[in-house]
Amino acid sequence: MTTTGLTSDISLDVVADLAAQLRVDSIRSSTSAGSGHPTSSMSAADILADLVARHLRYDWDDPRSPANDHLIFSKGHASPLLYSVFKAVGAVSEHELLNGYRRFGQRLEGHPTPALPWVDVATGSLGQGLPDAVGVALAGRYLDRLPYRTWVLCGDSELAEGSIWEALDKASYYQLSNLIAIIDVNRLGQRGATDLGWDTAAYANRAMAFGARTIEIDGHDLSVIDHAFIEAASHTGGDQPTVIIAKTIKGKGFSEVEDSPDWHGKPFPPDMADRAIAELGGVRDLVVRGPVPEPARQGPALAHPSTVDKGEKSQPSEDWPEYKPGDKIATRKAYGDALVALGARDDKVVALDGEVSNSTYASEFAAAFPERYFEMFIAEQQMVAAATGLAVRGYKVFCSTFAAFLTRAYDFIRMGAVSGVDLRLVGSHAGVEIGADGPSQMALEDLAMMRAVHGSTVLYPADGTSTVALTAAMADLPGISYLRATRGSYPGLYEAGEQFHAGGSKVLRSSPADQVTLVGAGVTLHECLRAADQLAGEGIAARVIDCYSVKPVDAATLTAAAEATAGRVVVAEDHHPEGGLGSAVADALLAAGQRDLSLVHLAVREMPGSGSGSELLAWAGIDAEHIADAARQLAGRS
Amino acid sequence: MTTTGLTSDISLDVVADLAAQLRVDSIRSSTSAGSGHPTSSMSAADILADLVARHLRYDWDDPRSPANDHLIFSKGHASPLLYSVFKAVGAVSEHELLNGYRRFGQRLEGHPTPALPWVDVATGSLGQGLPDAVGVALAGRYLDRLPYRTWVLCGDSELAEGSIWEALDKASYYQLSNLIAIIDVNRLGQRGATDLGWDTAAYANRAMAFGARTIEIDGHDLSVIDHAFIEAASHTGGDQPTVIIAKTIKGKGFSEVEDSPDWHGKPFPPDMADRAIAELGGVRDLVVRGPVPEPARQGPALAHPSTVDKGEKSQPSEDWPEYKPGDKIATRKAYGDALVALGARDDKVVALDGEVSNSTYASEFAAAFPERYFEMFIAEQQMVAAATGLAVRGYKVFCSTFAAFLTRAYDFIRMGAVSGVDLRLVGSHAGVEIGADGPSQMALEDLAMMRAVHGSTVLYPADGTSTVALTAAMADLPGISYLRATRGSYPGLYEAGEQFHAGGSKVLRSSPADQVTLVGAGVTLHECLRAADQLAGEGIAARVIDCYSVKPVDAATLTAAAEATAGRVVVAEDHHPEGGLGSAVADALLAAGQRDLSLVHLAVREMPGSGSGSELLAWAGIDAEHIADAARQLAGRS
Repeated sequence: MTTTGLTSDISLDVVADLAAQLRVDSIRSSTSAGSGHPTSSMSAADILADLVARHLRYDWDDPRSPANDHLIFSKGHASPLLYSVFKAVGAVSEHELLNGYRRFGQRLEGHPTPALPWVDVATGSLGQGLPDAVGVALAGRYLDRLPYRTWVLCGDSELAEGSIWEALDKASYYQLSNLIAIIDVNRLGQRGATDLGWDTAAYANRAMAFGARTIEIDGHDLSVIDHAFIEAASHTGGDQPTVIIAKTIKGKGFSEVEDSPDWHGKPFPPDMADRAIAELGGVRDLVVRGPVPEPARQGPALAHPSTVDKGEKSQPSEDWPEYKPGDKIATRKAYGDALVALGARDDKVVALDGEVSNSTYASEFAAAFPERYFEMFIAEQQMVAAATGLAVRGYKVFCSTFAAFLTRAYDFIRMGAVSGVDLRLVGSHAGVEIGADGPSQMALEDLAMMRAVHGSTVLYPADGTSTVALTAAMADLPGISYLRATRGSYPGLYEAGEQFHAGGSKVLRSSPADQVTLVGAGVTLHECLRAADQLAGEGIAARVIDCYSVKPVDAATLTAAAEATAGRVVVAEDHHPEGGLGSAVADALLAAGQRDLSLVHLAVREMPGSGSGSELLAWAGIDAEHIADAARQLAGRS
Repeated sequence: MTTTGLTSDISLDVVADLAAQLRVDSIRSSTSAGSGHPTSSMSAADILADLVARHLRYDWDDPRSPANDHLIFSKGHASPLLYSVFKAVGAVSEHELLNGYRRFGQRLEGHPTPALPWVDVATGSLGQGLPDAVGVALAGRYLDRLPYRTWVLCGDSELAEGSIWEALDKASYYQLSNLIAIIDVNRLGQRGATDLGWDTAAYANRAMAFGARTIEIDGHDLSVIDHAFIEAASHTGGDQPTVIIAKTIKGKGFSEVEDSPDWHGKPFPPDMADRAIAELGGVRDLVVRGPVPEPARQGPALAHPSTVDKGEKSQPSEDWPEYKPGDKIATRKAYGDALVALGARDDKVVALDGEVSNSTYASEFAAAFPERYFEMFIAEQQMVAAATGLAVRGYKVFCSTFAAFLTRAYDFIRMGAVSGVDLRLVGSHAGVEIGADGPSQMALEDLAMMRAVHGSTVLYPADGTSTVALTAAMADLPGISYLRATRGSYPGLYEAGEQFHAGGSKVLRSSPADQVTLVGAGVTLHECLRAADQLAGEGIAARVIDCYSVKPVDAATLTAAAEATAGRVVVAEDHHPEGGLGSAVADALLAAGQRDLSLVHLAVREMPGSGSGSELLAWAGIDAEHIADAARQLAGRS
């Protein structure tokens, strides 16, 4: 029942039958679950039937095959359609479709996730599937160098998300002719008509202006659909992505609801479902498999546009960079240095940056490995999405920009966790420490934002040596990991070779006479050390902890320190008071059952302006003088 | 020196002199500060000189005049140019420009903020000024009904941000002919060429496809610039925004750096600055004021496109909606009901929604006040930006969508705080409680995200009565306020008329014999009440607190409860463990010096899937049974 090649030998008559089955199964599954989106599935059923039966090259028995095409439902709410496809190819049973969909503990979730082996990325937050697909297609064209295509089903409503246009901009810049987006223009969103309705020409003009080849079709004419796919596939050797704009009818196939604005996201009650299934010709049980791919054979390396203006290629070394204690270096520079060594050691390491690589020092990686560096320009959403797509293909992607601007991509980071991909994010220029540029560039919310992501790791090193070790550790960390880097240069604290790990910390000052514990990370660790020196001169011994792992936090070391210093703890952070380092320390001490705690939390409690870094650390009350003051008060010496 | 009308009588010769002065002052200010972006200022100096001298209608002595045009620097890093304009019109002194720029405690910050009375919104995170301007222009066309124009200077690099295209999409949908964007295409970003370089035709095609009128010009030919502004202004009675695409040269006017990729964001050293100033003809001290506006006279009301499909207009009442204790209602429904009453009481109240108004019940406001409701479709960034722009014009804007999707707009929310505007955000469908739709729709990070915003208020009511009271309170709250709403319907807890306020809480169960405190909010409050009932049956008296104000949190009530129950506190929240309600309670108790605390924090610690709300609350360990278990253990009864 399978065949190899551009199209299978399944006839359009069978495809028509399959389309009816996909509609019927979309109705049955959503009615059985009591929720879901049958009408949004029905508009795209003809498209999917033809795609799966005659064009998608996919070995359903080997979803991990590198030769497989990719199929991403950017309109993730059309999950009944996707799962009905999985049933039609024999990958999911009818029993599972009718008893598992949207049920507790089951893998057929309300919106698709990689809990299913045929799903690359979680969707459901609209406007993300196409940007993710750009990452898959980047991998296919430039890194895997395999002829697989990436097919994306988009809704028309989601074209209002700017991220879609970031995706097409990058798809055309990177000449991703292996990317084929299909827009299901059914005219209706959740609450009524979209802003462009059925104006498919307007969508086509936009996509063309963003560099795509476009094909406008009737999304219910199988012959037209089939020709569009043949045409799209014939251009995969070219230099443009293809966007197929399909005019469709929401609820197509069931006359009672066709083109009705009142049936978004509503399953049909059983009696309506019965009428719909009857109108569609009844339940079917076709099993139809389309073409399988040729065995994977890697093509020639292609230069990509962002390799062009890189200048001379540097000579990377596998040796980890080393810095001497006391020598000043910015942690962002140490990140760039470490990334080059990582890249030399592991050719799966890839770097992206949001047009600030000369500030984040991702430029060093770009110079050393231009073929593995993709400039994302000022499009942070697309940067994280591309990383997600590249991760699907097994690459270890590091993304960098100013920490403040990662807030732009929070929805994508959150969805990365739902996808279960490993993303490595680096945010430089964090906190008031940056000084003159002012609050728009400062990142005072990033630790809270990143800690709240499920399964995340949050790192904030204070010197070059620890930055190198933690950057190296990130290469092997699962889930979302984040490293916060600092603009300014500060003295090295550790000898080369010192060990650091997620969940660790370092005790930098300690004695049996310690009266108070000072906890810092990044720039405030240096302030804690200065404060400890001041306090020592006054006869107050202070324990100082480098809490470089903000999540997971080293509860054991913190608890021991709190015990040893009669519960007197000062935490200082260059971040707003909520959800950051102070919160991590408090949560850990309370969870450990620490009693009799006197915790003073120094953080940025007002809106900063411009100034020098040291002026602003003092203004915020997180410099050595304020830390020492807090410690004196706790120790009863103020 | 001032005049009224379309253009002033200042000659282009004077404008040329002014342009040279703006370049010289951009150099002097950034060199004096030792940081800043002179070259990005110089590329747009001719544009600004002509705009300010001959077209911008602005009374510099009365920046709050409703008749004034608006000028927004979307490329906020060109602040030296903006501040040089302020000097040129006599609004800022030379002394301030040369001694205040980027200095601590001064208002001429590295990127513009409304600390300056002539600045509407903070910029510096790129791709936000134009979206904000859409809000100002919406106000001008439909609410203020005044003929002011909104002029926006954009960089070319920032056109890579999807938010720019969300803005143009909405600007054309809402026919904002009073919006004129000028793109300064100097070809160079921070680290090299932009992806489109000097391909101004490509930018024009994109802008046209998104519905704008476009004018391509040489951005250094004053006569051409002047004609473009005349043409743009002549179409403000039309139905399209105008985008002027100006080809420019970065560093224009100083031959040593013109079109060089090496001089982004770098002030010239003093010797270079001297050479540049000499080449530009030396320091000048022109004071030039352009046209002032005619006195404000309101035009006729215009229907806008999102009023069209609203159906019959409802009859709004000023009466606050009332619900009976015990009657089930969803807090999102109570929000919609309250918003209608607010709208009836105050015609400054405006609502926006991200295409889910039938879920958030913003639809009720849309039906009652179609002229004050703007559909933002699925463009959450633009929704928050439009609210920011509308707030600039004094409107009290409520924005609603699913709480999960507010993560899409985090950078805009954060920048709203920097702008100092009042934004009212409502996120419905929060937490695992939503059930079958799965994690993409759940919002398990929103409390952390919103708490970390400077000056924010975070509210999470559990019933209809409290939702109404808190929605009403939001109308008068400063800064960023957020109300988290729940999908399901739950019994009313309070009598109509009960008082609620930011920073408050309610003690719902209390006795002198209380052994443990249970803290909940929203859906978990109902679980706490059920747990208290179970515990009461076992002879364990539990105090129950409705912690509806997550920020500020009611430290006094929490502390009193902890004291009364020997430090035994259970907090349950439908949110990831970091940065939410548990964190707020822990922070408050520790800050209050609470000793001997036994705090058990129940939260969503794994990645959820689909299921029913009650299945998922149980799975997460935040239902009544788990709360009661935790309380028993604390009370020594497990």
